[in-house]
Amino acid sequence: MAVGLVSGTRLLMDSSGMSTDGVAALTAPTFADITSASERLRGIATRTPLEPSEFLSDIAGVPVYLKLECWQRTRSFKLRGAYNAVHALDTATLARGLVTASAGNHGQAVALAARMTGAHATVFVPATAPAVKKSRIRSFGATVDETATDYDAAEAAAQVNARKTGRYFVHAFSDFNVVAGQGTVGLEIAEDLPAVRHVVVPVGGGGLATGVGIALRAIAPAATLHGVQSDETRAMYDAFQAGHLVDSPITPTLADGLAGCTDETAYAWLRAIIDHVHLVPEPAIARAMRVLFESAGVVAEGAGAVGVAAVMERMLTLDGPTVVVVSGGNVDPATIAAILNA
Amino acid sequence: MAVGLVSGTRLLMDSSGMSTDGVAALTAPTFADITSASERLRGIATRTPLEPSEFLSDIAGVPVYLKLECWQRTRSFKLRGAYNAVHALDTATLARGLVTASAGNHGQAVALAARMTGAHATVFVPATAPAVKKSRIRSFGATVDETATDYDAAEAAAQVNARKTGRYFVHAFSDFNVVAGQGTVGLEIAEDLPAVRHVVVPVGGGGLATGVGIALRAIAPAATLHGVQSDETRAMYDAFQAGHLVDSPITPTLADGLAGCTDETAYAWLRAIIDHVHLVPEPAIARAMRVLFESAGVVAEGAGAVGVAAVMERMLTLDGPTVVVVSGGNVDPATIAAILNA
Repeated sequence: MAVGLVSGTRLLMDSSGMSTDGVAALTAPTFADITSASERLRGIATRTPLEPSEFLSDIAGVPVYLKLECWQRTRSFKLRGAYNAVHALDTATLARGLVTASAGNHGQAVALAARMTGAHATVFVPATAPAVKKSRIRSFGATVDETATDYDAAEAAAQVNARKTGRYFVHAFSDFNVVAGQGTVGLEIAEDLPAVRHVVVPVGGGGLATGVGIALRAIAPAATLHGVQSDETRAMYDAFQAGHLVDSPITPTLADGLAGCTDETAYAWLRAIIDHVHLVPEPAIARAMRVLFESAGVVAEGAGAVGVAAVMERMLTLDGPTVVVVSGGNVDPATIAAILNA
Repeated sequence: MAVGLVSGTRLLMDSSGMSTDGVAALTAPTFADITSASERLRGIATRTPLEPSEFLSDIAGVPVYLKLECWQRTRSFKLRGAYNAVHALDTATLARGLVTASAGNHGQAVALAARMTGAHATVFVPATAPAVKKSRIRSFGATVDETATDYDAAEAAAQVNARKTGRYFVHAFSDFNVVAGQGTVGLEIAEDLPAVRHVVVPVGGGGLATGVGIALRAIAPAATLHGVQSDETRAMYDAFQAGHLVDSPITPTLADGLAGCTDETAYAWLRAIIDHVHLVPEPAIARAMRVLFESAGVVAEGAGAVGVAAVMERMLTLDGPTVVVVSGGNVDPATIAAILNA
C-alpha cells in the first residue's frame, strides 16, 4: 500500500498553449471562462452549500468546511462542466448527437445536459460501473453502452463511435468548456469563504482540480490546492512522480469515479496549477464514507470521500480554513448499506 | 391499518385570536412574519433545492418536485423555526438558557440556534429517539435528557424544567416565531415554482404545515395543501376527524419525527389553513425511503418520506405541478442500511 505526496510545478503556460517544460497542451481556460460558465449555469446547476464540519474541524484543528457537490443535480459536480460544454454547441452539432465516455457521473451529466438542449447522448461506461450510475444515465434518456472493461476502453470505444457517426465527443476532463464549468466549484468556494487557505479535491482525470485551481489563483491566491487519489487509482500521482504519463495499474477501488488514466492535456493543465497530489489508503475511503454519514448525514460515493479520508488520516498540513470538496454521491444501495453496517 | 383522508375547514381567525368555531388559539403568524423570518435566516439556513423528480412525475402524471429540506443544516427544516424563535429573545432570556422537547430534529435545531446566539440549551427527547439525533444534539453543545418514554412525556418534563429554572421553552410547533420560520419553506416553494398547484407536507405537531399554508395563501392561493401522517402517528388526523383533540394511540413508527400529540393552538392554526390530511400505511414509508435513494440519491428519514409515500400510493388527486416536502434526513445508519438492503 503506497501512500504519499507529490507536488505540482505550477508551470506557466505560454501563449502558444505549450507548457514551459514543452508538454504539448491546449490553452487552458481562464478565470473569465469560469465566470462565463457560472452565468450559463444559473438555474441549471445548484449552488451547493459550503457547510462547516465539526467533526473534521476537531481533527484538523482548523475550521473545515464541506463543499457538498454530492447534492448537485445528477449528484456530482459533473453537471457544471457537461452543461457548459453542451450549451456551447451549435444546432447542427446538437442534431447529430453527443457521445461520451464516463466512469458514470460525467455520463449522467452529459445525458441531462443533452435532454435540456434537445440532443441525444450515447454514453460508454465500464461494465463495472455501479448499477445506480447506469440506471440514472438511462433515466435521463441517454443510450448506455456498457461493454468496455474499464474507463480507458470505454473512452477508446466512444472516440471510435464519434468518428464513425459524426457525433460530438464531450471529453470528461480535457475539454476546455468542461474544465471551465468545473471551475465554478472553485469560484463558489472563494466567494463563500474568501479567507480559504486550503482546498482539497478528488482527482481522477484532473478536470475538477484544474478548474478549481484556475478560480483560486484568480480570487483566492493564498489558497493551497491539494488533489487526492486512492492508492488504487493513482494515474495522476504516478505521472507527477515520473514527470510524464505512465501506465498505472487499474485495480478495483471504492473510488470507481476516479478510476482510469488521464491524458497529456489534463496532466499539463493540472501540473501547472496544483500544489500537491496525495494518495490515501483504500481502506480509509470506506471509513470516511461512514463518518460522513454518521456525523453529518451525508452520503458520498467513494470518489467523493477521498478528501475527507485525507483529512481524517491527517495526511495534509493544514494551517487555516480548509474546504474539502465532496464531489459526488452516486453509490449503489448495497454498497452504502454494507459500509453503514460495518 | 386505517388509511384515509380528512379535510380542513380553512376557518378564519377573528382579530381576538379566537377561531370562528370557538377553539381558543393564539393569533397565528401572518405572511409578513414569514418574510421577516426569511430575512433573518439569510446566511443561517440553506435555501434548499426544489428538484424535479422523474420517478414521481411518471407515477403522478403531473410534474412533481422535491423540496429537499433533508439537506437543510441539521438535516431538517426545523432550523428555520428554531433560529427565528431564538433570535427574537433578549439577552437576559438567552443568558438564562433555553429548554425544549423534541422527537429529535427540533432539538438539533434549538441546539445549533443556541450555539449561534451564545446560549445554552437543554433538550428533552424520548428514549426511543434515533441515536443519531441524540448524538447530533450533543455535537452542537446542548445537554440531552433522554429519560422520557415518548414525545409527550418529554414535553411535560421540559415544561416543568422551564418553570423551575426560568429557562425559555422553545415549543416545537405552537410557538408563533417557530411557525413563522417554518413558513419560509412555503415562501421558497412559491418563489421557485409560482405555478404550484399542490404542496404535500408531513404533519406531526403541525407547525410546518401551518407555516407553509400561510405562505401559500398569500402568494400561491391556487395551491392545495396536503398534510400527511403515518397511520401509526395520527394525532392530527384523528383530531380533524373528531373535530377536536383526541387521545390517539402512540405506536412504533419509522416516522419517529412525527410521533406524539398536537395541542389546541397548533390544531386550530392548522385546521384554518390546510385542505386535507392523509394517512399513509406504515409499510409505504420504507418503500418511499428506498425509492428516494435509488431514483434520486436522497436519504430521507421516515417522517421526511411520508409525502413521497402518499404520491407513490396514489392517495392524492393531483391535477397540476406538485411539490413534496422531504422534511428531514436524520436516520440511524443501521435503519437506512436495512431499508436499502431489503
